[in-house]
Amino acid sequence: MASSSSSSGAGSPLAAYSAYKFFTVTSPKPFVAHVQIQRPDKLNAFSEAMWLEFGRVFQQLSADADVRTVVLSGAGDKAFTAGLDVQSASQDTTLMSDQKDPARKAKAIRAQIEGFQGSIGAMEKCEKPVIAAMHGIALGLAIDISCTADIRICASNTRFSVKEVDIGLAADIGTLARLPKIVGSTSWVKDVCLTARDFSAQEALAVGFVSQVHESKEKTVQVAIDLAANIAEKSPVAVQGTKELLNHARDHSTVDTLRYTQLWNSVALQGADFPAAILSVLKKQKPTFAKL
Amino acid sequence: MASSSSSSGAGSPLAAYSAYKFFTVTSPKPFVAHVQIQRPDKLNAFSEAMWLEFGRVFQQLSADADVRTVVLSGAGDKAFTAGLDVQSASQDTTLMSDQKDPARKAKAIRAQIEGFQGSIGAMEKCEKPVIAAMHGIALGLAIDISCTADIRICASNTRFSVKEVDIGLAADIGTLARLPKIVGSTSWVKDVCLTARDFSAQEALAVGFVSQVHESKEKTVQVAIDLAANIAEKSPVAVQGTKELLNHARDHSTVDTLRYTQLWNSVALQGADFPAAILSVLKKQKPTFAKL
Amino acid sequence: MASSSSSSGAGSPLAAYSAYKFFTVTSPKPFVAHVQIQRPDKLNAFSEAMWLEFGRVFQQLSADADVRTVVLSGAGDKAFTAGLDVQSASQDTTLMSDQKDPARKAKAIRAQIEGFQGSIGAMEKCEKPVIAAMHGIALGLAIDISCTADIRICASNTRFSVKEVDIGLAADIGTLARLPKIVGSTSWVKDVCLTARDFSAQEALAVGFVSQVHESKEKTVQVAIDLAANIAEKSPVAVQGTKELLNHARDHSTVDTLRYTQLWNSVALQGADFPAAILSVLKKQKPTFAKL
Amino acid sequence: MASSSSSSGAGSPLAAYSAYKFFTVTSPKPFVAHVQIQRPDKLNAFSEAMWLEFGRVFQQLSADADVRTVVLSGAGDKAFTAGLDVQSASQDTTLMSDQKDPARKAKAIRAQIEGFQGSIGAMEKCEKPVIAAMHGIALGLAIDISCTADIRICASNTRFSVKEVDIGLAADIGTLARLPKIVGSTSWVKDVCLTARDFSAQEALAVGFVSQVHESKEKTVQVAIDLAANIAEKSPVAVQGTKELLNHARDHSTVDTLRYTQLWNSVALQGADFPAAILSVLKKQKPTFAKL
Amino acid sequence: MASSSSSSGAGSPLAAYSAYKFFTVTSPKPFVAHVQIQRPDKLNAFSEAMWLEFGRVFQQLSADADVRTVVLSGAGDKAFTAGLDVQSASQDTTLMSDQKDPARKAKAIRAQIEGFQGSIGAMEKCEKPVIAAMHGIALGLAIDISCTADIRICASNTRFSVKEVDIGLAADIGTLARLPKIVGSTSWVKDVCLTARDFSAQEALAVGFVSQVHESKEKTVQVAIDLAANIAEKSPVAVQGTKELLNHARDHSTVDTLRYTQLWNSVALQGADFPAAILSVLKKQKPTFAKL
Amino acid sequence: MASSSSSSGAGSPLAAYSAYKFFTVTSPKPFVAHVQIQRPDKLNAFSEAMWLEFGRVFQQLSADADVRTVVLSGAGDKAFTAGLDVQSASQDTTLMSDQKDPARKAKAIRAQIEGFQGSIGAMEKCEKPVIAAMHGIALGLAIDISCTADIRICASNTRFSVKEVDIGLAADIGTLARLPKIVGSTSWVKDVCLTARDFSAQEALAVGFVSQVHESKEKTVQVAIDLAANIAEKSPVAVQGTKELLNHARDHSTVDTLRYTQLWNSVALQGADFPAAILSVLKKQKPTFAKL
Repeated sequence: MASSSSSSGAGSPLAAYSAYKFFTVTSPKPFVAHVQIQRPDKLNAFSEAMWLEFGRVFQQLSADADVRTVVLSGAGDKAFTAGLDVQSASQDTTLMSDQKDPARKAKAIRAQIEGFQGSIGAMEKCEKPVIAAMHGIALGLAIDISCTADIRICASNTRFSVKEVDIGLAADIGTLARLPKIVGSTSWVKDVCLTARDFSAQEALAVGFVSQVHESKEKTVQVAIDLAANIAEKSPVAVQGTKELLNHARDHSTVDTLRYTQLWNSVALQGADFPAAILSVLKKQKPTFAKL
Repeated sequence: MASSSSSSGAGSPLAAYSAYKFFTVTSPKPFVAHVQIQRPDKLNAFSEAMWLEFGRVFQQLSADADVRTVVLSGAGDKAFTAGLDVQSASQDTTLMSDQKDPARKAKAIRAQIEGFQGSIGAMEKCEKPVIAAMHGIALGLAIDISCTADIRICASNTRFSVKEVDIGLAADIGTLARLPKIVGSTSWVKDVCLTARDFSAQEALAVGFVSQVHESKEKTVQVAIDLAANIAEKSPVAVQGTKELLNHARDHSTVDTLRYTQLWNSVALQGADFPAAILSVLKKQKPTFAKL
Repeated sequence: MASSSSSSGAGSPLAAYSAYKFFTVTSPKPFVAHVQIQRPDKLNAFSEAMWLEFGRVFQQLSADADVRTVVLSGAGDKAFTAGLDVQSASQDTTLMSDQKDPARKAKAIRAQIEGFQGSIGAMEKCEKPVIAAMHGIALGLAIDISCTADIRICASNTRFSVKEVDIGLAADIGTLARLPKIVGSTSWVKDVCLTARDFSAQEALAVGFVSQVHESKEKTVQVAIDLAANIAEKSPVAVQGTKELLNHARDHSTVDTLRYTQLWNSVALQGADFPAAILSVLKKQKPTFAKL
Repeated sequence: MASSSSSSGAGSPLAAYSAYKFFTVTSPKPFVAHVQIQRPDKLNAFSEAMWLEFGRVFQQLSADADVRTVVLSGAGDKAFTAGLDVQSASQDTTLMSDQKDPARKAKAIRAQIEGFQGSIGAMEKCEKPVIAAMHGIALGLAIDISCTADIRICASNTRFSVKEVDIGLAADIGTLARLPKIVGSTSWVKDVCLTARDFSAQEALAVGFVSQVHESKEKTVQVAIDLAANIAEKSPVAVQGTKELLNHARDHSTVDTLRYTQLWNSVALQGADFPAAILSVLKKQKPTFAKL
Repeated sequence: MASSSSSSGAGSPLAAYSAYKFFTVTSPKPFVAHVQIQRPDKLNAFSEAMWLEFGRVFQQLSADADVRTVVLSGAGDKAFTAGLDVQSASQDTTLMSDQKDPARKAKAIRAQIEGFQGSIGAMEKCEKPVIAAMHGIALGLAIDISCTADIRICASNTRFSVKEVDIGLAADIGTLARLPKIVGSTSWVKDVCLTARDFSAQEALAVGFVSQVHESKEKTVQVAIDLAANIAEKSPVAVQGTKELLNHARDHSTVDTLRYTQLWNSVALQGADFPAAILSVLKKQKPTFAKL
Repeated sequence: MASSSSSSGAGSPLAAYSAYKFFTVTSPKPFVAHVQIQRPDKLNAFSEAMWLEFGRVFQQLSADADVRTVVLSGAGDKAFTAGLDVQSASQDTTLMSDQKDPARKAKAIRAQIEGFQGSIGAMEKCEKPVIAAMHGIALGLAIDISCTADIRICASNTRFSVKEVDIGLAADIGTLARLPKIVGSTSWVKDVCLTARDFSAQEALAVGFVSQVHESKEKTVQVAIDLAANIAEKSPVAVQGTKELLNHARDHSTVDTLRYTQLWNSVALQGADFPAAILSVLKKQKPTFAKL
């Protein structure tokens, strides 16, 4: 039924994504893809095979003209994701190799971290907006992943932690690079990163890490899907340009972003969406837009 | 009457600015200029002639030694500004030209956006602090403009929106370049920029977009003028240096800003204001400062 | 007594730091150093000799393998610090020299500011996390100093002010370079920097300048020490790496920090701490870590 | 006569530029503008009125669709330009004002240098390639100006000097910012900038400051015009894009320029020039291109 | 025979690279790979399939511990490469698609250029030094490709050209981003990029584009192989670190590269190569190094 | 005798520098300091004690108002310097420590490299121009050191080498960070850095590493001293500003350096040197300048 599928956020499976093992991709609304992390019996913890697949899922979504916005959530009641599978990490062949030469071992580790960062970063590079809808346990890699989303919302029972210092390392998949640019208090950022303490949904809202908190996982996912559907109705030229320019602003000076913006809109404004949208505003009609 | 002029923020007209057509400039307090957007019958919406004039007003204010701080507000009860005049934009000769060559049309559009960005950016380049006092409708260009102010305050009835995606474009006059560096939650920034939804004065306060909310437009403007007058009593060398160095910090590394600061104060501290201000602190007297 | 020393945060004096004149350094918990500004009769105001010593204290702490975290507070009930000693500044031989040539005087002033910035900046460069525990009066230089801390907490009676414009200068020891990158509202930053007005502990918490407020100085210092002790129990390789990478992120693009992180962890993960910490998680035991 | 005008580089006067007082602008070849500095009795030395006009000339050329390339030379046999008119500089009202407050005087000087830099920099911002054809005396400002050209060639009798240290200042109109990025030996750059010594055409060629040396002024100007004409026959979309991207590369990382290039060509390649040029190559015909 | 293989540079085929269609990879000396562009009947011009394969070849070489240095040359007597196959480009499905919406078409073009840049850039990202040995025709893409090599040498008959403006576009695969940082005269760079004129081996040597010129293709390739063999005998930790740090320097400030260098060598110096190399210097013996 | 001291470049010993053990500092001309590396029996090879002292010598010179320019050369006939004392390096307590934990050892190595970089970098930070006059053997550290000089000249017998890869490491004291920004051919830079081969004075001149070659050490040093004396006669405000701004340009965008230049000259032009120098030019007299 539409109503139950709508309230659960299940939607129709997207055939093009049926081969993935750790992620299900459905379409609960037109142009909206819903990606679910599917390893609930392990609290959705990530093995190496999973994060490699994660990268491929988002590369495909980025190029898929039938998708305009994406929602990411975790399957099951307990966890968005418990992060990296520590058991698996403790048997990692690179980290635990018997290579005795620190210089040679370093090269292998660098390559592995670069690959891991690249897979998770594919969500940030995805040209369509991604909304992370979190609940329950959200530790370690959960933070790295959600930092690459565009919008973060969560259920009130979410328990977050930048857990890495407790397993003896500085977080290296993106949390330390992105979190200080996502929220507005470096004192808070250093507190949670140096202590690895839990923080709640309310605390995450107060510092701006998430922008909405809802009473349950179900409600959170539903809100995310509705938000995604709302954005998916707008001009994809305008939406994808907005994502690109906001991401550009994070890492460039104001002058550089303004110049890049001139160039971006010099072609974007020649598309059909701009006159169509203006016309719809003047005529108070709902516009439709071609695929992008 | 002084009291009524004070409470309305009207002040005395500044003769040097009387030729402007879309903006009135008065001086409600010594060294304070109050700029009002004067097109209330059109909700203060901007035509091209208006934003060109806007740039000239702030270039003049920047160089005017009789002005130490500026307040910007919108005339009338309804709107700070409803943004770009969409009717006018829909007839824009550059955007709607019959030039069929996309490469050639792009050059014309780039030049137009660059000019528009430059006019609005004149408020940021103005060497004197600018306080935006907003109320009512504040859509689209209203955000671009207020992002170039130093301090933003608003009336509780203000209705903000980063409206551009709804007219089919990524905001290109500064909002996407500046907003992520102004507030502390990128999740919120992307939410409002991608959905074009309204946000309230209270929400703007919570995320730090504005730093004060007052019960009415009249009160907001009055507070802005009092704040401007307070700053105008201080050393203009110290005040303008503070604006310059804070703006420098936004776009440079800490090391670079510290070095630039050394150079800046190596001459600023040789001025008369520094010993005068120290003396006034030690003697608990009120200092006066020469024009700058 | 342990309990009273604990509640007062006094701890054992650290012999290696006994020669300092303006700062006492004790160790209230293992691997925790507690630095107190010791000039309570002058509201802990800084003379030139003090800030030079301040730099040396933190250079020594940075290299001291017996110290893993640092707490900074001000002695006495009244003030964290009232900032630069204005009386002393008014007699500064560089600023008040009879050198008549502005170009030559500028060189001397630049050198002095550079030295001053360097001394205060030693706290930021200290490789161990520093927690500033503030109370009472915290003016001018108090802000410059605390901006170089990693975590800021304060007592509810703290009275903050970016005071410099009131003595006729743009703050030049770091506040203007760092504050906009520490909190999430530039409107608020410009308000407090341009007006030099007081702001309260609650306001500091709301904008994210501090991340905790406690009811008294005693409680604040105690919480800071407990927080420091908590961090000191973790892998120093992970903790110092986390500080380094978060500081790197502030001044570099995301891409650059990700690459730097790969390199950092390519050697950090080869240390003994990472397998020891993973093992302790798997075995639910408490790990210990060698000095760093 | 065409032949004499061609050999002298005089060309037809361009009516749109006839009002300038210190510069003559002719068109010796289709789409080529030839700007001559016209103050030969003063060795083409620049007064303030002249550099202000210089900026306006190049702003106009940048926007003029009838101009695709520009040649700049100096009128008369003796000098490209002897630089800033020292007599005039010694009476400069800003530099020699009786303002006694160094902080206030500094603001006026900064504004003046900024304006001067902006006028000279207009040649770099001109979207069309500019070829500087130099001869004879080329001192001080001559270097600042030619550093903003795209291509520099000169006559064998040219006598260059970065003269500023000999009049007691560090060159501030662009030489020190641009010269190290124009040639390939910083040892040579510091030698000529610190000693203010003359350097010859041959030395300029050896370090790459100029890329061609010719036997006379007449020959140099003729070569410059022929080179300009050659470029003017090519696609203006391709030519102006090439200038823009090379200038972007100077001040950005490789990664940034590559990304900017993608965006640039995503619209440029949609123009009519690209298929027309390809077709002309395949058919070995000479293409023509619409104005830009 | 070793001598003939040595003089021809043919070497033994490397089995791991036998599946490539457009490139042959042999090993003329221990740890040296020799990549030859194999489309001599088309002057080694690149189709899309070729540049995609080019990227894969260099990704494989980068990860191959049996390869320490790489030589790139073109098969046949006539050309290193004539660049992009213009015939093929004129039928490009992206550039010549019937998509009428400029905004939508721009997205497809951007993606294509990004992919093309990425494939060619794989040679720069290859962690082992690459020596480009060029001869004969070397147009357009030949320059883009060789700009990503570490060392460029050529035969005296090489005819270079930055050809792109003649086919109506600004070079977009890397020449404009890299060439100004490779040679020491921007006047020369703009000359060759704006005119598309040929330049000779001697001219390339004079401006520093190549660092050696030899009398024939055969000699050039042989010198390249000997140079590659010489580097391959050295510590791969030292060699690959040197490439990484020199590339870092190109795009970062001196301060940033120095800091990155500290981190790099903090692990590299812990490897076995450093003490082995020092010992070999002290004992005047030839060292051997483990694979990397 | 003055004449012999002049021709040998010996000059009078400078008393303030008599306590240094490895360096002699004399004054062969007014305001010129001549620093000689004094360990000729070891080919002027550097021990750790030496490079620490090197840093202190240049810090003192930077602050010494009696010194306006500096010449650096090596004592004895054989070597400028043979670089790091390899025997000494092979016994280095940090590099060869028995610390088994790679993460902990890395911290010690990083600190050592940072200190070493800082000592050598003191020559670059010295506010007065430094001329390196090289001869004979100039290996490894010789390149790192001379890269921090402003002007490099050498005797025709100089034998240079970036030697580090031959002792198993990537050069880490500055060569790899600075050399690509000093000369104009990255192909040549990578050749000499990856092969560690010798290069001659003539080759160094051709690529712009040095800007003059002379027939003997004696002549080279004499020319350096004369050059230093020539610069020392000019306005120190202009000379030191020129060094500062050229160094700024190396690591900043053109726009940033232009803005920094405005600020620099806003105070420099208020000094006595500018009007004095202009007057001397107009009156054709030789100016004198106060100490700086």
